[in-house]
Amino acid sequence: MQLLKDRIQKDGIVMEGNVLKVDSFLNHQMDITLFNELGKEFHRRFADCGVNKLLTIEASGIGISCITAQYFRVPVVFAKKMKTKNIVGDVYHSRVASYTHGKDYEIFVSKRFLGAGDRVLILDDFLANGEALQGLISLCRQAGAEVVGAGICIEKAFQPGGDIIRSQGIRVESLARIKSMSAESGVEFC
Amino acid sequence: MQLLKDRIQKDGIVMEGNVLKVDSFLNHQMDITLFNELGKEFHRRFADCGVNKLLTIEASGIGISCITAQYFRVPVVFAKKMKTKNIVGDVYHSRVASYTHGKDYEIFVSKRFLGAGDRVLILDDFLANGEALQGLISLCRQAGAEVVGAGICIEKAFQPGGDIIRSQGIRVESLARIKSMSAESGVEFC
Repeated sequence: MQLLKDRIQKDGIVMEGNVLKVDSFLNHQMDITLFNELGKEFHRRFADCGVNKLLTIEASGIGISCITAQYFRVPVVFAKKMKTKNIVGDVYHSRVASYTHGKDYEIFVSKRFLGAGDRVLILDDFLANGEALQGLISLCRQAGAEVVGAGICIEKAFQPGGDIIRSQGIRVESLARIKSMSAESGVEFC
Repeated sequence: MQLLKDRIQKDGIVMEGNVLKVDSFLNHQMDITLFNELGKEFHRRFADCGVNKLLTIEASGIGISCITAQYFRVPVVFAKKMKTKNIVGDVYHSRVASYTHGKDYEIFVSKRFLGAGDRVLILDDFLANGEALQGLISLCRQAGAEVVGAGICIEKAFQPGGDIIRSQGIRVESLARIKSMSAESGVEFC
């Protein structure tokens, strides 16, 4: 999606350690006008999939999911992160290995909000190693819900997450796929 | 706001320890149609205040803020929570005492996204003891930004937060103010 690529080129900052800082418009300060265009595009790509629920993970997936939900006219459920091992209540939960933050964490969703018969579109801001997405897919499988696909704002295509998820037969649509990036030469898209 | 009060009566669950569970529509599963009505109402109440930025805190304030931002046509900034004491980078930060979770945490906002000249409307899903709101106000003061007010979905008026914040001269608009609640007799609004 050219609009997002242009915005990344304009306002994204490549940091050391394969970090792309897009906090001025995507995941700290949020440009809602841009979000609406991203939401329309997710809807265009998944409009005929019978989606009845959007699933994301706190915190930075929530904004884009809420705006996108307006085009699908469905509710959003966000998986919560739990730092402790004390998962209580009637929930589906999954362990997420985080390379980025260096430690694992648990995510969970109440069983009341995900179940058999649900046709779920998973949304997130980034896809890199795919750990969070893998965890969300696991929640859906536990619930007997069908994952119709994953909509990603920015995929770091030079990291393995996208390939791993696609090889499981999950449709992944990324609005901007980064082929390579560095502080010196900037961002190159696929 | 009657629509929200009705929804709380219909789908809210009063738990022990003064907990009101509204996770089926507000802060786990999110009803975006409802959020749009809440957003319109926040805009109606603060339309003439020259708001140029919405400020909230992760995670459950993000959804309502993004939807509301569409009516104000301004960006959203969300303060991040940091569990460690290692706040790095060029940020404003504030310590939040949490009675609910039993331990303090730090919140921060990049200095790039909050500054003098900003006219900030703070939004959040709940106001009870007011710790989080107090922290957000502190971030704005550090930045030299003006807080035009706080928009709250559900205020537990039997807890002291609302009074404390209002006594500082901050305009607080809560869409549903709970006078009392209990598992036996349910929710009574002000």
